[in-house]
Amino acid sequence: MKIAIVGTGMIGGAVARAARRLRSVREVTGVDNNPVHAADAVRLGLVQRMQADVPDDADIVVIATPSEAIADRVIELRDHRGVIIDVGSVKGAIVSAVRARLGSAPPRYVPCHPLAGSEKHGPAHAPEQLFHERLLILTPLPETDPRAIATAEVFWRDLGSILHTMPLEDHDRILARTSHLPHLLAFAFMHGIADEELRFSGGGFRDFSRIAASSPELWWKIFELNRDTLLAAVDRFDADLKALREALATNDSRTGLRLLAEAADRRRKLP
Amino acid sequence: MKIAIVGTGMIGGAVARAARRLRSVREVTGVDNNPVHAADAVRLGLVQRMQADVPDDADIVVIATPSEAIADRVIELRDHRGVIIDVGSVKGAIVSAVRARLGSAPPRYVPCHPLAGSEKHGPAHAPEQLFHERLLILTPLPETDPRAIATAEVFWRDLGSILHTMPLEDHDRILARTSHLPHLLAFAFMHGIADEELRFSGGGFRDFSRIAASSPELWWKIFELNRDTLLAAVDRFDADLKALREALATNDSRTGLRLLAEAADRRRKLP
Repeated sequence: MKIAIVGTGMIGGAVARAARRLRSVREVTGVDNNPVHAADAVRLGLVQRMQADVPDDADIVVIATPSEAIADRVIELRDHRGVIIDVGSVKGAIVSAVRARLGSAPPRYVPCHPLAGSEKHGPAHAPEQLFHERLLILTPLPETDPRAIATAEVFWRDLGSILHTMPLEDHDRILARTSHLPHLLAFAFMHGIADEELRFSGGGFRDFSRIAASSPELWWKIFELNRDTLLAAVDRFDADLKALREALATNDSRTGLRLLAEAADRRRKLP
Repeated sequence: MKIAIVGTGMIGGAVARAARRLRSVREVTGVDNNPVHAADAVRLGLVQRMQADVPDDADIVVIATPSEAIADRVIELRDHRGVIIDVGSVKGAIVSAVRARLGSAPPRYVPCHPLAGSEKHGPAHAPEQLFHERLLILTPLPETDPRAIATAEVFWRDLGSILHTMPLEDHDRILARTSHLPHLLAFAFMHGIADEELRFSGGGFRDFSRIAASSPELWWKIFELNRDTLLAAVDRFDADLKALREALATNDSRTGLRLLAEAADRRRKLP
């Protein structure tokens, strides 16, 4: 198989690195507008070579650009012979943009989202085994070709992913709460911390705020692409925060303790 | 030196474990009302023995009980010959309670707070080197004996801590923002997550929410003891969250990106 990776940043670089190890993969080609990423991806051996355009004979094209650039690439590749996979954190807005332009999504496009990442970016930070035993969500569309889905599934399984298929609306709603919301909260939290307070922070602060070091550009776009669903998640959080604040302000220990205990019980269920 | 540890949970256990390694320490005795912790602390070799009362000849008494029990112990030990150290996450409420009862705090009591912890509790989770190269904040009082401060400083330095002295009001204000607030936010966040959403979480979720697995009882008490300062920190966060929400709701990318960039810049300064 020949693989093309469009966007050789941290995620695309990790796909390339993992794909090169597969026996079924003969060639990994990169496509990237960013000359620094392009040079790094070759120098680090993530891809065999870089090209200006997606090779016509690629069997799988992985679109790993920032989320807002995915729809244009899918549209551009509508007649490509290969299976088109993306790794975007939001699915609804991408598919809507593609459908608005083409009427329906290309049958060989399989929307995917690996739940794996890091606050770092760029091919130099592409981990060795980013997808190993991590969840990979597929959100195939009514118009998606089942053979394309099967190819995508085999590819991700070969990279070590655990697959889960769900409707795209469910994906965007769940991820708004489990991923986009914590990022937004971490950014808001860090915005309120003063530089001189940073040294008075322990391990709790460090872990809680780690994702606030993520790329502002990437994440603002993700927030925008999932705006309404994320706003609803923010409002739900705000209600939980208000309930806890109210219990504290009114010295209502019973309610406060109950809210904390319910939260802790849930967090302790995380495998 | 003889050391007594009152409260042999995770923090007290870690103090005991580290103290036993010091050449200057001849004996480490534990005091704990919790029979399971008491038995574990002996079985794990954290302390040489448990006693019902603090030994009269202890040179240093470390009070590592939950925060709400510290003031009573300081009051009980007002005539003890040793230096009394606590490790409470809140200082103002403890000192106020002691002063309210005794008029002034005992001169040999040195309020301390190691910025080291974990969401786990109990002596079985006492880490080997919890204090090594971690910040230790001392908030000595006008009535504190300088020789007691010097003894406390040497002790913590021997455990590997980096010392920082500040007024107790500063401690409570800064820690409300760098420690109590992220805990409260993590609890509120986890309260809003459904069990069935847990599996759709990545590394960001895991780190962000880790501290929500902390003890609800311990943290609710800390929140209560630092109530007004923490409520102010919550309101400051709420203003930051509202600003970000508003930028998103009104499609104000310029403001949204700026807020995210300021937050990310700050987080990246964390050493």
